[in-house]
Amino acid sequence: MHDPNPGLDRLTTPCLVLDEARMTRNIRRLAAKAEALGVTLRPHLKTAKSVDVARRVLTGGSGPATVSTLAEAEVFAAAGVQDILYAVGIAPQKLPRVLELRARGCALVILIDSLAQAQAVAEAAQAAGQPIPALIEIDSDGHRGGLRAGDPELIEIGRRLHDSGAELRGVMTHAGESYGVDGSAAHAVFAGKERDATVAAARALREAGLPCPVVSVGSTPTAHAAEDLSGVTELRAGVYMFFDLVMAGIGVCDTNDIALSVLTTVIGHQHDRGWVLVDAGWMAMSRDRGTAAQTVDQGYGVACDLGGRIYPDLIMRQANQEHGILALRPGSTERLPNLPVGTRLRILPNHACATAAQHDRYHVIPEDGSGALMEWNRFGGW
Amino acid sequence: MHDPNPGLDRLTTPCLVLDEARMTRNIRRLAAKAEALGVTLRPHLKTAKSVDVARRVLTGGSGPATVSTLAEAEVFAAAGVQDILYAVGIAPQKLPRVLELRARGCALVILIDSLAQAQAVAEAAQAAGQPIPALIEIDSDGHRGGLRAGDPELIEIGRRLHDSGAELRGVMTHAGESYGVDGSAAHAVFAGKERDATVAAARALREAGLPCPVVSVGSTPTAHAAEDLSGVTELRAGVYMFFDLVMAGIGVCDTNDIALSVLTTVIGHQHDRGWVLVDAGWMAMSRDRGTAAQTVDQGYGVACDLGGRIYPDLIMRQANQEHGILALRPGSTERLPNLPVGTRLRILPNHACATAAQHDRYHVIPEDGSGALMEWNRFGGW
Repeated sequence: MHDPNPGLDRLTTPCLVLDEARMTRNIRRLAAKAEALGVTLRPHLKTAKSVDVARRVLTGGSGPATVSTLAEAEVFAAAGVQDILYAVGIAPQKLPRVLELRARGCALVILIDSLAQAQAVAEAAQAAGQPIPALIEIDSDGHRGGLRAGDPELIEIGRRLHDSGAELRGVMTHAGESYGVDGSAAHAVFAGKERDATVAAARALREAGLPCPVVSVGSTPTAHAAEDLSGVTELRAGVYMFFDLVMAGIGVCDTNDIALSVLTTVIGHQHDRGWVLVDAGWMAMSRDRGTAAQTVDQGYGVACDLGGRIYPDLIMRQANQEHGILALRPGSTERLPNLPVGTRLRILPNHACATAAQHDRYHVIPEDGSGALMEWNRFGGW
Repeated sequence: MHDPNPGLDRLTTPCLVLDEARMTRNIRRLAAKAEALGVTLRPHLKTAKSVDVARRVLTGGSGPATVSTLAEAEVFAAAGVQDILYAVGIAPQKLPRVLELRARGCALVILIDSLAQAQAVAEAAQAAGQPIPALIEIDSDGHRGGLRAGDPELIEIGRRLHDSGAELRGVMTHAGESYGVDGSAAHAVFAGKERDATVAAARALREAGLPCPVVSVGSTPTAHAAEDLSGVTELRAGVYMFFDLVMAGIGVCDTNDIALSVLTTVIGHQHDRGWVLVDAGWMAMSRDRGTAAQTVDQGYGVACDLGGRIYPDLIMRQANQEHGILALRPGSTERLPNLPVGTRLRILPNHACATAAQHDRYHVIPEDGSGALMEWNRFGGW
C-alpha cells in the first residue's frame, strides 16, 4: 500500500508540512483561470518565500512575479527571476537597493501613490542616469493605500514620473476587502471594482497623453471570481498556491485544497476539560485569528491525522507560545478522539502567509508518491 | 548634545530596536525583587532567544535559565549555559535530544504531567543508563497543563520517576491566567495560587517519602506582585526583561519601560481617513492583538518618534502583511502629527515574545551612550 506520510513520524515537531499534490492542483487552477480571462498571471511570492515554490509557480523561470519586500526581490533575482513587481509603496530610503537590483539585470518595478514618492523616484532616476519604472497604486475598495481613479493628483504623479525619465509603467490595485465577504458572487463584485478603478485610471492617464501599458489587479478571492477583465493586462494573487482556512471560510477553496499544515505531537491532556495539549502553539501557528470574524471560527487551526483527514470539530481552541490546546468546538456533539501522548497530528492554518512565516523550511510530501520527504528552504526578513 | 538615536536613521526598515538602558533597568528590577523574596531567579530566555541578552540577564554565565524549546536549550548550552529547565511538557520523541544535551554536560531538566510521560522518561533513562531529572507540572489556575496539587496521580508519577532512576527533581507551575487581570493586588492573588499549589504538591510528594528539592513558580505579573514565597525555591519570568503593551496594560510596567520597538518608515497617507501608512505590517509586528481584550486597545502597537517619545493617541489601527495603518484612537481629540513620506517612527509592540520572533536580530541602542548601534543576533526554530 502507498504510504501517504513518508517520514512525517520522524520529523522534529512542530514543523511545516507542504502537500505538493495539493499545491500543484491549486497552481493549475489559477493558471487556467488567468488563461481563460486572457490576462497574464503574476504570482505573488510573499506567501511562499521559497525559491523551490517559485520554480513551480512561475510560468517562466524568469517571471513575472510579485514580491512584498526587497529581500524577496533580492533572493528571487539571484535565483534567476528577472521580472518582478515590488508591490508595496516605496520608502525613498529604499531606492538605492532598487537601483542596485536593476543594475544587476533585474527588471524590478516599484509602486507609488504620492507626489512625494514620485519626486523621490524622479530624483533617484536622474541621479543614477537610469529609469526606475513605477506603477501608481489605485484605491478600489478603501482597503489601504492608493489614489481614487478620479483623483487629479493621478495625472500629476504620472506626469512627474514620465517627464523625469523615471518611467510611468501603469497602474495597479488590490481589493483586500474581498477577504471580508463570502462567496463567489460577492468576490466578483470586488473583481469588478478592481477592473473598473484601474481601467478608469489608465484611461485618465492615456487621455492626458501619458503611457499606461500595465493595468494590474488581483487578490486570491477576486482572481478566482473575476468574470471579465477587459482592459486589464495582469492578475496578481499569492495565497492561492497553498490556500488556508480563511480562504475556505469565504468559499474560495475547500479545506481539502489546503496544502499547508503544521505537524505537531500530543504532550498532555486535561481530561475533565476535554483538552488535548500539543507542542505547536502560536510560535508554530502564528497569532493569526483570521477566522475569528468568519461564520465558523476555527480557533488557531483545524486538527487532522497524519494522512490529512480532518478530525470532526477538533480545533486548536487556545494557543500559548509553545502549547496548543485542542478541543471540540463549542456545541459539538462529536466525541473527542483518543490521542495518547506522543500521537502526531497536522493542523491546518488560518492564514498560510502568517503560519509559513514562523518556519524556516517546508517538509514536502512529494506528489510523485516516491515516498521520501523533500526539504525546501524558506526565508524572511526585509 | 547626546544623540539618542545613533544610526536609527540609517537602518533598513522595518527592523527591531532594543533600548539597552531600559532592558538593564528591567533586569535589575526583577533581580532585586527575587533577592528580596529570598528565591533564585531562573530567567526564561524564550522572549529574547539571544545569546547576547542571555549574557546580560543570567546571574551566572552558566544559568540558571528556562527555555521553551530544545533548540533554545541547544543554542544556550553551546554558549555555556549549563543549568536549563525545558519548561514545556516533553514529547517522548524528544528524549534522545535531551539525552544528547545532558551527555554534552548540560544539566537539562524536563517537565512532565502524566504517567505516560513518566513511563517514557523512565524507559529512556534506563536504556541510556543515565538519569533524566524531571519536574512535575502543577496546575494552579486552570491555564493549560499540569496536575492539581491534590491529584493522587501526582504521587504515582513521582514514584515512577524516582524508582526508575529517571530522577524526580520537584514541581513547577505557571499562572498564565495572571495576564488576564489588572493590577498588583490581582496578580498577587495568582502569585499566592502558584505558591500554594506547588508547596502543597511538594508536601504531598515528601509525605509519600519522595524527594522534591525544587519548587518553581512564576510569570512576569506574579513575579513582580509576589509578597511571600515561603516554601518556593525559584522564580521564573521572561517578558520582564523587555516588557510590552500587554504588561503595561495590566499595570506591571509603564510604557516608558518597554525596551523593544519596531523601527518603520512612512510610505503614504490617506488624508481624508486620517491614515498614515508605514512599512511595518503584521510581518514586523506579529499578529498578536493581546491588548484587544484590555481596557485600552492599542491596535497593533503605539507610535513613538525616533527618540522613543509616544505620539499621543497614535496607534497602528490595522496591519496587512507589509503595511501598517497608523491613525488616532477612536474618539481622540488629538491632532494627527505631520509625518511626511520617509519619516521614521518606532512602534511599541503588544507582545514582546511575538514581535521579537518576527526578526532575526536586535539593533541595540547602547546604554553607555557611546553612539554606535550594536547588532545582536536572535534565533528561532525548534
